[in-house]
Order: sequence, then C-alpha cells, then structure tokens
Amino acid sequence: MCQLHNFRPKRDPCSAANINEITVEHTAIKWTVSFQLKMIIGQATLRCRCLTDATKLVLDVRDLSIRSVSINGVDCDFRIAPNVYTFFGSKMSVYLPPQFQKAGTILQVTVAYGTSPDATALQWMKKEQTADKRMPYLFSQCQAIHARSIVPCMDTPSVKSTYEAEVTVPTGMTCLMSAIGQGSKGDDDTTTFFYKQPVAIPSYLIAIVVGCLEKRDISDRCAVWAEPSVVDKAHWEFAETEDILASAEEIAGKYIWGRYDMVCLPPSFPFGGMENPCLTFLTPTLIAGDRSLVSVIAHEIAHSWSGNLVTNSSWEHFWLNEGFTMFIERKICGRLVSEDYRQFMAFNGWTNSLIPAVYEQFTPTHQFTKLIQDHTNVDPDVAFSCVPYEKGSALLFYLEQKLGGSEIFEAYLKDYLKTFAHQAIDSWQWKDHLYKYFADQKEVLDTVNFDLWFNGVGMPPEKPNYGQSMVEACEVLLKKWLAADESTVGDITSEDYYAMQPLQQIELLSQLWQHDPPIEHYKLDALNKLYKLNDSQNSELLLNWLRLCIKSKWEECIPKALDFVNSQGRLKFCRPIYRDLAQWPIANKKARDVYLKGRSQMHPITAEMIAKDLHIRHSTHTVCF
Amino acid sequence: MCQLHNFRPKRDPCSAANINEITVEHTAIKWTVSFQLKMIIGQATLRCRCLTDATKLVLDVRDLSIRSVSINGVDCDFRIAPNVYTFFGSKMSVYLPPQFQKAGTILQVTVAYGTSPDATALQWMKKEQTADKRMPYLFSQCQAIHARSIVPCMDTPSVKSTYEAEVTVPTGMTCLMSAIGQGSKGDDDTTTFFYKQPVAIPSYLIAIVVGCLEKRDISDRCAVWAEPSVVDKAHWEFAETEDILASAEEIAGKYIWGRYDMVCLPPSFPFGGMENPCLTFLTPTLIAGDRSLVSVIAHEIAHSWSGNLVTNSSWEHFWLNEGFTMFIERKICGRLVSEDYRQFMAFNGWTNSLIPAVYEQFTPTHQFTKLIQDHTNVDPDVAFSCVPYEKGSALLFYLEQKLGGSEIFEAYLKDYLKTFAHQAIDSWQWKDHLYKYFADQKEVLDTVNFDLWFNGVGMPPEKPNYGQSMVEACEVLLKKWLAADESTVGDITSEDYYAMQPLQQIELLSQLWQHDPPIEHYKLDALNKLYKLNDSQNSELLLNWLRLCIKSKWEECIPKALDFVNSQGRLKFCRPIYRDLAQWPIANKKARDVYLKGRSQMHPITAEMIAKDLHIRHSTHTVCF
Ligand SMILES: [Zn+2]
Ligand SMILES: [Zn+2]
Repeated sequence: MCQLHNFRPKRDPCSAANINEITVEHTAIKWTVSFQLKMIIGQATLRCRCLTDATKLVLDVRDLSIRSVSINGVDCDFRIAPNVYTFFGSKMSVYLPPQFQKAGTILQVTVAYGTSPDATALQWMKKEQTADKRMPYLFSQCQAIHARSIVPCMDTPSVKSTYEAEVTVPTGMTCLMSAIGQGSKGDDDTTTFFYKQPVAIPSYLIAIVVGCLEKRDISDRCAVWAEPSVVDKAHWEFAETEDILASAEEIAGKYIWGRYDMVCLPPSFPFGGMENPCLTFLTPTLIAGDRSLVSVIAHEIAHSWSGNLVTNSSWEHFWLNEGFTMFIERKICGRLVSEDYRQFMAFNGWTNSLIPAVYEQFTPTHQFTKLIQDHTNVDPDVAFSCVPYEKGSALLFYLEQKLGGSEIFEAYLKDYLKTFAHQAIDSWQWKDHLYKYFADQKEVLDTVNFDLWFNGVGMPPEKPNYGQSMVEACEVLLKKWLAADESTVGDITSEDYYAMQPLQQIELLSQLWQHDPPIEHYKLDALNKLYKLNDSQNSELLLNWLRLCIKSKWEECIPKALDFVNSQGRLKFCRPIYRDLAQWPIANKKARDVYLKGRSQMHPITAEMIAKDLHIRHSTHTVCF
Repeated sequence: MCQLHNFRPKRDPCSAANINEITVEHTAIKWTVSFQLKMIIGQATLRCRCLTDATKLVLDVRDLSIRSVSINGVDCDFRIAPNVYTFFGSKMSVYLPPQFQKAGTILQVTVAYGTSPDATALQWMKKEQTADKRMPYLFSQCQAIHARSIVPCMDTPSVKSTYEAEVTVPTGMTCLMSAIGQGSKGDDDTTTFFYKQPVAIPSYLIAIVVGCLEKRDISDRCAVWAEPSVVDKAHWEFAETEDILASAEEIAGKYIWGRYDMVCLPPSFPFGGMENPCLTFLTPTLIAGDRSLVSVIAHEIAHSWSGNLVTNSSWEHFWLNEGFTMFIERKICGRLVSEDYRQFMAFNGWTNSLIPAVYEQFTPTHQFTKLIQDHTNVDPDVAFSCVPYEKGSALLFYLEQKLGGSEIFEAYLKDYLKTFAHQAIDSWQWKDHLYKYFADQKEVLDTVNFDLWFNGVGMPPEKPNYGQSMVEACEVLLKKWLAADESTVGDITSEDYYAMQPLQQIELLSQLWQHDPPIEHYKLDALNKLYKLNDSQNSELLLNWLRLCIKSKWEECIPKALDFVNSQGRLKFCRPIYRDLAQWPIANKKARDVYLKGRSQMHPITAEMIAKDLHIRHSTHTVCF
C-alpha cells in the first residue's frame, strides 16, 4: 500500500528507455579502442531488473553498430528504430523470451557492438592535435545524452548503475575512466586497463580518456593527469585541490567516491570542467598561471554531492544539478576567501551570466529561460545555457536569506543531500522536502512564488540581496574610465586594477561592455596598454575583454578574437565570440572561414553548436567511413 | 494468365530472405578493410524491386554489426532475429514505410555495418602466415551461405544481382574481386580499388582478396595473381589456361565474363578452386611443378557456364552446379588429352570419389547421399561432399550413353546452358527441359528411373559404362604388387609406373588402399623407395599414399601425415587424413594436438569441420574481440 502510494512513474523525454518497466543495476564494459578506425569495439553487459512483467527491454543507442544481443547467454531478437529527431539517436528494443517476462527477474543482457567514428560522445584526436604530438588522444563527454553513442544504455539520469570496465588500448597509452583503477596488464601491442565504479551512477557520468598521460599526486586522494609537457603546470595550478575538497566536505558531508583525480584535457574540450566521478575532466584554459580560475575545481568538487549523488531525474530539472552546484561552489570559495567574495561571485553570476543569457542568448520570453523546462522533442545541448546554473543558484541564495541565513541553510543543505543521496529527483520532490524540512517556516515559504520561479520565463521574480563591498571597487574604477576623455585617459594608473581580485577585473570589463554607447577605440587602446589585456593568460578575462572590443567594433581585435576561438574549444568562450563576430559584417566571413577550417578538429558538440550559431547548415555525414 | 501459370514460389531453406516478395537487382558496396581489427567496415546499398505489396524486406546477415538502415536516404526501422541454428546467421527485417509497400516499387536500401572478426566468409592472415611474410592477407569464401557474414543480402543462389564495389585497403596492398577492375586511387595511407560486375550473380559469388599480390599475364583475357615468391611458379603451372578456356567455349558457348583471371591463395584455402566470376580462387596445392593438376582449372572454367550462368536455385540442387561442372570439366580434358582419358577420369570419380563418399564419409542410407537433398535445418557445409559432383556427373554420363552419345549430348548441353543462362533453376526444371529437348526419345527417357536417381540414397541405380583402357595399366601393376612377397618385392621396377598419367598413379595407390587385408609394411617401404612417394609434389597423390600407409598402420608415416595436414588446409586432403588418424589410437592424440595448435591459423570453415570430425566441441567464441 505504502509502496504503491510512493510510486510515481519516472519521466525523461530525452530517453526512449522503458525505465518504468525495467531498470539497469550494473554495467560491465569490454572495449577495444581503435585509433585507426576511430571506433570502440566491444560489448556491454547490463544487469537488468524487471520491475513489471515486461515483454521487452528498450535502450537508447545512437550510431552504434549492433552485432548481437544475448540474454543470459542466448542470442535474442532486437529491433532498432530511429527516433524522429536524430539527436535522440535510436530506440533499441530487445525482445524478452517468455520465461523472462516476469517482475523481479534479473537479466544479463549482453550487447556486442561498435561505435561510429562520428560518435557524438567522443573526440578522436590525431597526435598532431595534442600538446606533445606523441600519441593520438581520445576523450568522451557523455552529458547530456551522448552516452548512448558509446554504450547501449538507459540514457537518462533517472537510472543509476554501478559499472566496471576492461579497456584495451595500444601499449604506451594510458586509459583513465570515471571509476577506481584496478590495474592493467598487457603485452608489446596492447594493454588492458581495469576499472570499477562501485557507486551507482547515471549513464552521463561514464567517461573515458586515452592518451599519453602522466600523473602528479596532490594528496593521498587527489592527483592530476595531463600530457607530459602540461602536467607540471597543471599540478601547480591545481595544487589547492585537497584544501577545496576538505572545505567541500565541511559543507556537504563526507566525500564518498574514494579518489578525486583530475585530467587536464586538450584545448578542444568544450566545457570548463566535467564532474566525472573519481576523475574530473578539466579544460586547459584553467591554467592561467596564477590559480585565478580554480573556482572551477570547487564547482566540479561540489558536483560530488549535487549531481553525482543527488541527481536531476531528467534534464528538465537540470537546475537541481547546476544551481545547487553553483551555490555550493560559492560556499566553498566563501570559506576559502571570504563571505564578501561569495556575495560578489553570486552577484557576478546574476549580472554577467544570467542577464546575458536571458536577454542576449535567448529572449526574456524564451522557454529556455525557465528553471523547469519542457524537453519534449528538445535537444538538451540546444537548451543548455547559464539559466539553470544562475537562476537555480539565485533561488537558493534567495531562500537562504529568507529562511534565516547561512548557518540554518547549510544545515538544510546537508539534510537535503543526505535525504536524496543515490537518488534522482525532480523539482517537486525538492520542494516537498524543503517544505518538510522548514515545516516551522511554512508561512515564509508560502510567500515565495515557486510557480514563477519554476515556470516563469525571463529573469527570476525576486532578486536576492548581494553584498556590494567588492563590487564598489569595480564601480569606482568604471567611473574613472567612463569619465575620461581623449586628453585625460592617460592619467589613469593601474594600481587599483591590480589590487583587485581577477573576478573583479572581469566585472570591470563586463560593466564596460554593458555600457552604451560602446566604449571609444582610444579608451580600448588605453585599457589594453595599461592592463596588458591582450596578453592575459586568464581566459575568462580575455573573453570579457574581446567582447568589449567587438562591441565597439574595434577592428584591431579581430585577429586576437579569431585566434582565441581557434586555440581552444570551450563553449563558454567560443559561442559568444563567434556570435559577436557573426553579427559584425566585417568579421562575419572571417569567423565562418575560421570555423570551417578548424571544424574537423573541433569537438563534435562544439562544431554542431557553433554551426547553428553561424547559421551554417552542415551536410549530412556520409555513412561510409 | 500465362505469367501466373508460370509463377512458382522459389524455395531456399538456407535463406530467411523474402525472395518471393522482393528481389535485389544491384548491390553497391563500399568497404574499408582493417587488418588491425580484422573487420570490414562500410556499407552496402541494395537496389530492390518489390514483387508484391510487401511490408518489409528480409535479408540474411551473420555476425554483422548493423549501424543503420536507410531506404532512399531516410533512416528506417529494422530488426535482427537470430535463427534457431546459428549457421544460418540472423534474419534482418527492414520495415518499409507505407508509401513503399507497393508491387513495382524500386527501393535503394543502404545498410551501414561492420563485419565480425569471426566472419565465417573471411580468413584474416598475419603476415607471418603468408608465403612472403611481407603483408597480412585476407580472402573470402562465400559459398555456400557465408556471403551473409560480409554483406547483408538475400543469401540464396536463386537471387541474382549485379554489383559494384569501392574497397579501401592499406596502400601497397592489392584488392581483387570477382568482378572487372575499374582502377584505383589513393594516397600514402590508403588506396581505394573500384570494381564492377555487370552480370547478375548470386551472392555466393561475391569474393575479395587483399594481399601483397603480383600479376602475370597468360593471354589477353587470362592472368594469374599470387604473392611475389609464388607468382612465377603459378604462371608456369597454369600456362595452359587460355587453351582450356578455348576448349570450354567449344563445348559450352561464348565466354561472357570478360576476363578469366586466377589468384593463387595461401595454403589454408579450403578448396581446390572456387569459381568466383572473373577471378577463380585456387589452392597453391595445385602447383605440382608438372601441370598434372590443371584439371581443377578446367573445372573452374566450366563453372563459367554451369553454376555461374545456370545456377542451382538452392543448395538442395547443388548437383546442377557441380555434376554439370564435373561433366564439362571431363569433356574439356577429353578434348585436351583423349576420350580415353575422359572415360578414365569419370571412372576414377565413381570409384575413388563417389564410393568412398557413400560408404565411408556417410553410409549408403544417409540422406546426404541423395542427389536432391532436403536442407531444412541443414548446414550446407555439413552436407557438402562429392555426392552431388559424382552422382550428378554420373547421371549425365549415363544419359549421354543412353541418348545417343557424345555429339548428340553436347548439342543438348549447349541448348540447356543457353536456355537457362542468367537463371537459377531446380532439378525439375532441368528434367522438364531434358524431356522437351529429347521429345523424340521420350520412351528412352522413360526407362530412366529419375525418382531413384534424384531421391534414392546410396549409389546410383545404374552404373554408366566407363572405357577401361587406361585402368588396365593400373590393374596390371596392382597385381604385380599384390603378388610380390618379401623376397620378390625388390624385383619390381619403376618404368611402367612412370609411363602412366599421374591420375593412373593415383588410381594405383587408391586400389592398393582399397585392398584387404591392408598392404604389408615392407611393401609400403618398397613402394616409397621405388616411386619416391614421400617426396611427391603432387598433393592428390600424397593424399592417396598417406591414406594407404595409415590404413596399414605404418607408424613411420605419422609425421609425414601430420605435416601434410598442417602445411595446407584443403578440405579434400585434411578431412580424410584427420579422420583416418583420429581412428588410429596411436595417432589420435597427435592429430588432435596438431589440430588444436594450428587451429587459430586455419580457415574458419576448415577449423569447424575438422573439429566435428575429431569430435572436438569448440568453446563458444567470446564476443569481445
Ligand atoms: Zn556543473
Ligand atoms: Zn565446382
């Protein structure tokens, strides 16, 4: 009775899997990696539990070549049906023999298959594309719905499975996965690496890197991997990882994943970081030389709880992953730097991330500006933006202030993470728990317009109060620059700028960029000369500086901007710059040329999204490879 | 009305294809060959014609990894269902969108796929396994039902399709196919070869070889290919090919295939030859150094009419391919040598092939001794034997004598080949035509018990009269050997033996082998010393010599016998020797050891059949490769 009462069917419009009939509990992978064919060949055995008297198992696949499917060792019928939208891949139905069509049955379903060279989860790099040019390189990015292009699975965050893997790669190369290493063995030709992930995780957290990789230890449980020429720089840049992890544990509870290793990927990695369990993936653009960008580490570490332990049940509730993670990230930085800094970070997120996303990337009436989204027939990569990160984080920041401040809210946060650990939940489950936890503050909660926060488009219905102490320095300096004219601009000196935190410098540039009319060219020239902006190794700062220049149509910046988008593939940097350049007639063709030239070396996700931004309709892949 | 009257549904129990609803008219192949993964990756586009308002296209596949299926460029649903018997592979159903479900519709069905490293049609050889040890080697053997392991197809001889192919291989290697070459292009890494087969052929005649290959021209339309160290020997051995082809044309009509090339394969090729159109595959065991085995060339050339032009509609009527081909082969040899020789060859086939097949390989009540067989749930490789060759050939030899001799029967033969050219027929269509052609000899035909010839087990109901002139020399010599004792055996001299044709020498050894009690060891020793039998380069002769020794349990021969089966993989030689050794307790373990040791380097068909003969149950392949 009680169980029936609790049962609510899971929903994930981005998956065809029959998750309410069968679930996957464990996945055993055997892969051989062929750099020549750009294929992973092998098999996956899914231990499935029938929840009902199901007649078939439905899995997500995308561009997989399926050789055979067996259940408990016996070959069986299967059917592949392409989805209407190609970005969902195909639906693979495995027909269960009658004796298995019974709730409670455990099935070992083995799929022998190969991936496509166009597998959207994978980037295959020739050795010439790597830092050291010694060996080819492979890395995966499964979030949101790309796991299905490397493994047949229930490709929804609402299904969690433990996994193990045996991966055979050419000898000399290292294979890393989002799991705990169990050693390797091999001969002169090939080496097989063994991994186990004993914590049940959603499919999007399966991850693999293969390359010429070296390791540097940071602490007993933390290390960083990178190509030999990069590894020492990365080791220095991320040396504070153990401290960040310890801070995170204070806030969120014990770290349960065993190891927290990081791998610094090639520049084409599309994200700042990806929270693959036991092995965070990081963009090399974080290596600023001054540890100024380690908040990304705090972010990925925070995902060890929000996202990896308490998981959104579908990408429609992505804010549960990212809003919470932004909130915890800033909590960590608050502890490591100061509460003022946390306030400033949150303010910065509102002004420099959320506002541009709502007004610029979308429009304030666009459905993707909603906190809870409807992903029916929607490619989550297209819906992806800062909105779930910053609108979600703003909601929590707002609630913290409403419900009694930091201490009270941190206790709530711990309870929330503990309550839903190892589960996948939606926004309503989150809200139910919030009401239950703050039962004594029901009247306060009732004053929050959750309907507008959840379902309203545009900016949130309320703006939290952000401590302004660190913003003030930015505004003082901003006024100096705005007040200067051609004859006085030379009087501005650099001390106050260099006294600021990098994030404050970025805020200054962002405010200059937001100013109308656009900043005059002579001022841009003066800014560049005074602050050596073009030479900055801080890519976040460069992004803001280049956008400022482009807005002012300062032609001098075009080569630098093209160089910037060409030298790395992080979506956060490439999409705005490409979009800015595309809207500037004089730069549009150059941007398209750079894109088309670099495209074959780009990550498939990046290539696809920039193509959309540049209105380049790319030809269908020919299937012969 | 007339059409309806003529329509009889095609039957092929070895194919799951819906051949009575849809047919394949053209097959366009694009393949990339990976020696590293032992896979062919690519696609096949089948131009299909709907014969009825079919809702699906059903194709045969075996161990293929299917990536996608499209019809006229649009991805569509498909289903793979394994057959009950794994040797039939699986049934691939492609669901036709409603607008295509109409008789007369032409569909372009593209299947993107990869083969399995265990594809039964393919043998992948490491360079160490080749004669020159310079490059790896790949060759195919699709007959009877292995084409489905390299291309999704209607894998039945009753469906004929033209084909074209683009095959990409590592640069430096040559790709040959059963088609007319259209040149090649490539770069430092890979070279693509283009082929076209403009004559519609059944799937079992699709063939590929990739290796380090050189060519030697024999005539304007004939050449031989082989590895560099073998090609000149092969060129000498097969120099008479153009003459044989010209003789064949006199008997069977114009040669329509353009080129008649041959490729001399590595020793593991399981057959004497395979009549792949435009490119006969040959075993290197034919290179005897004395052109004594070129009747195999005559056989393969004869298939250019019987088999490749007039084709058995299923393997149940295999005698239409092989009985006719043996008959024409002997006609050719009769013209090139003498009519006496043809008579002797036919006699030899009866006594040394058909009798052992009926009494030794099977039993006289075994269903596989029938001319027309029932292959429901039967693996044609298991049913394969000399029976359709020799019982079929004997029927034609018998009919020739009954119906008025050589001249009359050759005119009939030409008419038969012309009537059914480009078709696939069964035994009843053959018989209908025979009655029609010999309408004036109906009474004679009515005295032939066709029911017993077609459906009777054991030896045929009638034995043809074989001219005995060439047998007599063998019998004289046989008597000498049988009459000799330990004191007189040294008096036998070698002139009469060396005066005989190789086939007569073989006949002598065969008769000695058939003799009971078995020949004494001292006689075997004397035979060997006098005729240098152990040193013979003629593998047919070696086969008979070794069987004779084994029957006498002459232990000295065991190393030679093991060496013989280990040095080549021709089924005709390996199966009897392995079977003989297996039945001899002292040799059984050694035979099994040699098999198990050599197995990984054997052709998959050979490995499978010898395992059955040796009663070695081989473990299921693990699917992870
Ligand atoms: Zn995140
Ligand atoms: Zn033949």
